[in-house]
Formats: sequence, structure tokens, C-alpha cells
Amino acid sequence: MKVDGVPYRTIWLAEDGWSVEIIDQTRLPHAFAILRLTNLSEAAHAIRSMQVRGAPLIGAAAGYGVALAMRADPGSSHLAEACRVLLATRPTAVNLRWALERMERRLAPLDPAARAEAAYAEAGAIADEDVAICAAIGNHGAALIGEIAAGKAPGRPVKVLTHCNAGWLAAVDWGTALAPIYRAHDDGIPVHVWVDETRPRNQGASLTAWELGRHGVPHTVIVDNAGGHLMQHGDVDLCIVGTDRTTATGDVCNKIGTYLKALAAFDNGVPFYVGLPSPTIDWRIEDGIRQIPIEQRDGREVFEIAGRTADGVVETVALTPEGSPVANYAFDVTPARLVTGLITERGVCPASRDGLAELFPDLSSRR
Amino acid sequence: MKVDGVPYRTIWLAEDGWSVEIIDQTRLPHAFAILRLTNLSEAAHAIRSMQVRGAPLIGAAAGYGVALAMRADPGSSHLAEACRVLLATRPTAVNLRWALERMERRLAPLDPAARAEAAYAEAGAIADEDVAICAAIGNHGAALIGEIAAGKAPGRPVKVLTHCNAGWLAAVDWGTALAPIYRAHDDGIPVHVWVDETRPRNQGASLTAWELGRHGVPHTVIVDNAGGHLMQHGDVDLCIVGTDRTTATGDVCNKIGTYLKALAAFDNGVPFYVGLPSPTIDWRIEDGIRQIPIEQRDGREVFEIAGRTADGVVETVALTPEGSPVANYAFDVTPARLVTGLITERGVCPASRDGLAELFPDLSSRR
Repeated sequence: MKVDGVPYRTIWLAEDGWSVEIIDQTRLPHAFAILRLTNLSEAAHAIRSMQVRGAPLIGAAAGYGVALAMRADPGSSHLAEACRVLLATRPTAVNLRWALERMERRLAPLDPAARAEAAYAEAGAIADEDVAICAAIGNHGAALIGEIAAGKAPGRPVKVLTHCNAGWLAAVDWGTALAPIYRAHDDGIPVHVWVDETRPRNQGASLTAWELGRHGVPHTVIVDNAGGHLMQHGDVDLCIVGTDRTTATGDVCNKIGTYLKALAAFDNGVPFYVGLPSPTIDWRIEDGIRQIPIEQRDGREVFEIAGRTADGVVETVALTPEGSPVANYAFDVTPARLVTGLITERGVCPASRDGLAELFPDLSSRR
Repeated sequence: MKVDGVPYRTIWLAEDGWSVEIIDQTRLPHAFAILRLTNLSEAAHAIRSMQVRGAPLIGAAAGYGVALAMRADPGSSHLAEACRVLLATRPTAVNLRWALERMERRLAPLDPAARAEAAYAEAGAIADEDVAICAAIGNHGAALIGEIAAGKAPGRPVKVLTHCNAGWLAAVDWGTALAPIYRAHDDGIPVHVWVDETRPRNQGASLTAWELGRHGVPHTVIVDNAGGHLMQHGDVDLCIVGTDRTTATGDVCNKIGTYLKALAAFDNGVPFYVGLPSPTIDWRIEDGIRQIPIEQRDGREVFEIAGRTADGVVETVALTPEGSPVANYAFDVTPARLVTGLITERGVCPASRDGLAELFPDLSSRR
């Protein structure tokens, strides 16, 4: 999407033809900085430190990480090592495993001498496919937004609430949850987005607000506590969120706090949709609450926060009393019963085994 | 309660016998500072700027604000003016109106020359009664905690989740939601408190964590998004929160985000209690969502945050991209259907008209 008029992706091959460039998302919204990745270790660090984040982008970054590794040493043991290192960077998003298995499946049978070139091609394909998938999610989701707009007085915006960042910064382009919003906005349907700030890392306030603002989409940042109140008062027409892993039965694992918004949507009759590319579906599991590992991250993300001082310097400040312990769970699971529908690249389906199986007979039968 | 061994209240008459001292809560947890209030304007500022906050403490501070006003000018027009000024400081907590009506009822019939002394006596009575009320809430609530403890293996803590600050800092002493926790802890029942940080003002991370820590109660600070996940995994035995206004039918208006935790508790079969002194009940209204005015505060509370730098200086930093609007709703309403019980100074009752009327036949008949 556009950053003040200039189109960008989140990850791309540099002009040198082999190194990989990313937008360093840890520096947003205070600075827009491009970072160059030149080896496996830098790629793994980029994922682990969340310079790149978001399930689809993690998958693409892992693909390029394997490519960088194959350029350095295309041996079979190094291929296995690269996949092992990258898989260990983040535990929750299934796209990481999906992308690495795809890379390994493609590369392992090849002669080592052919692996680097094939790895770059495959990583590029993963990225390009993600863009196509997200664009399709955008089209299907925009139809839902259009239906709501049709029931409103002309010019009245469709009010969408989203949690965390499942925008183009979380994917290669377009995004998952935000793709329908960009599509609707670009098509002239008036939308207004309530952006949950999304503590502890504030990806809503830092990334979603930034990318919506840069693309010109009207939005308002709210604290994570506010969404229930807005829904009680009719100020939310629908919710759209992303997912880091979706079970074969439609349970959705997404950023911590998503479950609370789904409960509020259900309690107030507000449609709750999840935008997802099919690689985010983990066909092997059925019970999200019991089976999806929930990452626990450094407590610093809770007790410290970074922001701009009046002088424009980015400073980190401590929020809690000295001596008070903190806990930092990164994701929660929203049971399928609270999800109105899944917006996939093949269309919208109920959040259920049957719903998913009908759209993805080729994939669901793999279980 | 105790601050590192020394007992404190949140508001008291200074040694000079007329000025009023408070703990400046805007400086916690980074500094423990006492502030002296000498006139109506300073008292109104203290409430408006949240140097004192919490429904019961707002009531006591309003009482002392009237006393300071009467000391300066005990005339009837000034009494009316003082009540008008103080009532306008915060819109949601009903204790403010309750305390001011009580002061006016006591003072208006008196000869102006007698008003200052009577005002100090009445404000002192409001404060002392609040301490007694909160201590009684503590006893009734501790019995609930004790019942849960009795069902656990010896030494396993009762895990309580609370939102915002309804501790002794929100009252004159003991607190409302936290009174049962202090009582249980002091009685040797092991408790562990999950402290919601409570954006945007972070009263959980700043105040609840601070007061629990200073009194020695085990606790862990979490982001507001985390409670649902903890409840899904059996890590919360009960929730206890406070309330800024409770309807005659048991709807509870409390800090924004309380409703989301109540939904999660209901969805997971976790008991959800509200600790409240009877002055927090607004017997005149029945529908919390439609009838309680929800304060909208300065957006700075959302887009900026203050904390300690590595040098120990308190610095304010901006969190959101420049140009992104914010909204700041301070409270939400939890419908009575989601509340397991109300813990009052007269005992625990169902959150319903009948439940409240049975405990408070003298007050509920006033409607």
C-alpha cells in the first residue's frame, strides 16, 4: 500500500539482487526506516525481535531467511539448520512452519548447487502469492462492508473495529483484516476504523494507525478497554481481526485481547469477522485453547514503553512500581462459536470444520 | 493501609487543624508525595486532575472541599457555589453528588457562623464512615475468598483478578474491591492478585500494584488484554472490581474495560463480584447503559504516557503517529446479568433490584 503516495511492500529483494530489505517495524510510528538483511542470523533476529511481524510476513521473511542461508552454504545440513533456527524464532504463527516446510520440500531434493537460486525463487513466490491472497481477502471482505454501507444513509461511514495490526505491515501487502478496509476505501465506500492500541506492544497505535493514516483511511485510536462500550452504544458496525493460527474447526488464535472483543461483539450482535490467508490454517489441530502454544514474551514489553519525547527523541520509560512482577502472554484463542465468518482468499465461510472444508476441500483432506 | 509499615489514609486534616492533606496520586508509582489543599479551587482541581480519584475518595474530598469553602466564606450563596463547582469536576461517580447533597443538607439550615465547624465535622464523618464501610466490605468479601481457599490444597493462593484501582487509594482506607483482599491477606489466607494495568491512565499498574506491593500482597501486573486468556486457562478464581455508580437494578458503571472482563468471567464460569459502599448506589436510575453519563477525558491520556526514564526522571512520551485522532471514554457499564454478587457493607447480595432492596430497605424505598 502507499506511504504518503509511494507504494511499498514490507519485504523485497534489494537492488543488489541477493540481500533482502524490510521496513523496520520496531521503529514505527516514530521513524520510517529500511533495514537490510544479509544472512540467516539477521533474518532470524528480524523475526524474533519483531522488526518483521504478522503471520503472513513472518512466513515470507522465513522464506527469504532460507534463501540467504542457501546463498552462504547450500549443504543439506545447513538447510536443516536454517529451518530449525528460523522455526524457533516465534512459536505461535503457523505460517512460519508452513513456509519453512514448503522451502524444505522444494529445496531438499535439489542438487546443493541449485538450491540458492531455487530458494530465492520460492521465497519470491511465497511473497507474491501472499499479495494475491491478501488482495482476494480484500475483495471478499469489501463486499461485506459494502452490504453494510448499502443499509446506511449515503456518506455515513461503516464503522469497523480492529485489534492489533493485521494490515499490510503484517503481510507482504494489503494485509488480512485491513485488506477489506483498504479495498472498500479505495472503492469509495466511506469507512471509519476504531484502532485498538493493542497493549503491550501497541501494534494498533504504532502500526495500524500509522498505515491507515499514511494511506488516508479515517480512523481513531482507542485503548483496548474501550471497544465493549462502543459496541454497547451502536458505534461499531463490524469487527475484523487477523489470526496467527486458525484450527481446522475455526478457532482463531490472535493477539492477546482478541477474545475479549469477540465476546463483546457476540453480546451486542455485532458481526465479528476474521481475515486470513489459508496458510494460517493449522489443519492438524481442532481445539485452539488446548492445542495452540501461547508465546510468553519478555516482561519488559509490559513494564516499559517507548515513545517520542517533546524533543522528538524516542525514549523508553518504566510504567510499573519497582518490585511489581509482570506477565506477558502474547496471544489468546477466540472459540469458533464467537466468530461470524472467516474471510479467506476463496471467499467467506462459517468458522467451522464444515465451513472450512467446503472452501478448502484440497487442504482440509490432508489431515 | 500501610506504606512500607506506616499506616496511611488518602485524605486527612493537616496538623494546622484546617487545611487538608492528600496523597498526590498523579505522581504514583514514581513518587510518594503529600499535597496540601487550602481552598475550594485547590480541592476542585485535586478531583478534576485526579490527584484524588476513586468514587469513595471523591466523595470525601468533596466534603472537605465544602469545608474549605465554608472557612473562607460561609454565606449561603457561597455554599451553593461550592457545591456547584465541586459537582462539575467529574460526571460519573455518584458519590460526589451524594456527598455534596449530604453536606448541603447538613449546612444549609445552619447559621452561616456555624457552618465551617459543622462542615469539617461532616466531612470528617464522611471519611470515617467510609473507612468503616470499606472495612465491612472487606470482612464480607474475605469470607468469599476464604470459601474458595477452603476448596484448594493448603498454601495454594486464591487467584483474584481486579481492574483499575478500587483499593485504599480509591477510598479513604481499605478500598472497596481490594478490601476483601487485604482482609484475607492480613488473616493469613494466601492470595495472588492479577492487576490489570488499566489503560489509559494505568491506575492498575500505577496505583493498585503500588499499594499491594507496599502492603506486601503478592500480585502480577498484566495488560488489560490478558484477563480472558487467564480465565480460559483456569488461572483466575474470582474477579473483584469496584464501581463508580451502581443502578437500583444492579448495573455497574466502572472503569472502561470492566465490561470486557465481566463477559470473560461469565463465559468461563468465573465468579465476578463488585465491591461497593452503599453511597455508590444511584437509587434513581435503572438502566446503566442508557442513563449513566460516561465521561470523555482528554485524548492526551491515550496518546501520551508518563514513566520513569533510566535516569529516574519522570518523562511523558507520545505513543501514536502524529495526525491520528484518539477517543478517550473513561467508564463502561457492566449489566447486572454478568455480575455474580455485590459486596456491600451490609453483606453480599445478588446484582438485582430485589437483592439490593433486601439489604437496603431503608434506602431503596427512597426512589
